[in-house]
Amino acid sequence: MGNSLFISFEGPEGAGKTTILKLIAEKCKEQGIEVLTTREPGGSKIAEKIRSIILDPEHTEMDSRTEALLYAAARSQHFAEKIAPALASGKFVLCDRFIDSSLAYQGVGRNLGIDAVHDINVFAIGDQMPDFTILFDLEPEVGLARINANSGREINRLDVESLAFHQSVREAYLQLAKKYPNRIRVVDASKNVDEVVHEVWGILQTYM
Amino acid sequence: MGNSLFISFEGPEGAGKTTILKLIAEKCKEQGIEVLTTREPGGSKIAEKIRSIILDPEHTEMDSRTEALLYAAARSQHFAEKIAPALASGKFVLCDRFIDSSLAYQGVGRNLGIDAVHDINVFAIGDQMPDFTILFDLEPEVGLARINANSGREINRLDVESLAFHQSVREAYLQLAKKYPNRIRVVDASKNVDEVVHEVWGILQTYM
Repeated sequence: MGNSLFISFEGPEGAGKTTILKLIAEKCKEQGIEVLTTREPGGSKIAEKIRSIILDPEHTEMDSRTEALLYAAARSQHFAEKIAPALASGKFVLCDRFIDSSLAYQGVGRNLGIDAVHDINVFAIGDQMPDFTILFDLEPEVGLARINANSGREINRLDVESLAFHQSVREAYLQLAKKYPNRIRVVDASKNVDEVVHEVWGILQTYM
Repeated sequence: MGNSLFISFEGPEGAGKTTILKLIAEKCKEQGIEVLTTREPGGSKIAEKIRSIILDPEHTEMDSRTEALLYAAARSQHFAEKIAPALASGKFVLCDRFIDSSLAYQGVGRNLGIDAVHDINVFAIGDQMPDFTILFDLEPEVGLARINANSGREINRLDVESLAFHQSVREAYLQLAKKYPNRIRVVDASKNVDEVVHEVWGILQTYM
């Protein structure tokens, strides 16, 4: 123990990322591991302010390139202020969304190109990629139905995109998993929570 | 007439950019030219919200890369919403600060590198560079003294940087003028307002 580990949780809304992340964090703490749980966009005062601009449902005029640059800006700040110091002190960092969200949602969903969006994120964080990434794969229809059933959660500017948008994001994620097979591990998010936690915990063990 | 022209005004705070820009806009209007005067960071609802994050004096923890990405994000939005439509309708656009501010302040002042900052701005605006740029060159000491004497103007997060920072920004601007001699025209901003207006108007004539 004592070695840091940087793990990102990726996938569509409604895939259970946030729930599973909390349960995995609890299991880590039970083992005496110090954990930082955090989320993007956001995770620090400045990054949360950027988040509020990105997700405001009234910002219908937002240009795709502006959106991609704002995500990269929030990521840069979040990484510098929170993630890098936690990793330096030997903690596990469990991050709800990271660079792959930008590659999938902006690179493919917004048609900006994976490489172009990758480049502005390299500007933001250098080569500080997650040690590994759990991709919660799910049919967009199932994810959107789960969001609609969960009345406690706010609907944001990206939720209301078309089913075709969410379908292209899913395909982009699977494409990224093929491109980075050593980093990205795909989990079937249609299974029940206990099964998914068991599977993710098993993956995490291989890195400890 | 009827042809659009995109002109950016660059240089340190206190160089008289904003004053001269207004006077040149008036002279254009007297000639029956339709003009959009605008400024960066800002120039649209979303871009002004980004501006308020960038310039907030309380954001002392802002990472340099975050700052550069926020400027590029504001620029992308401002360009898409305001500048591009104005140029498409044949207007003259007079813009107080544009890409060269990022190259000088973030590329050199913050040591991020001119090429790296150039690349994220190419992501933001493509190849839509100003037709020409007036660089108001001034000793930083003179500019800062003018700001301090002008009690009506708010002091922002960049004004309070050291004299060495502002000196490096000035040198960066002059370096950019050498790199882009066809685009950037240097004006001695220590002269009085009438002389500078006369000189800028003369330059503008050569593009009309």
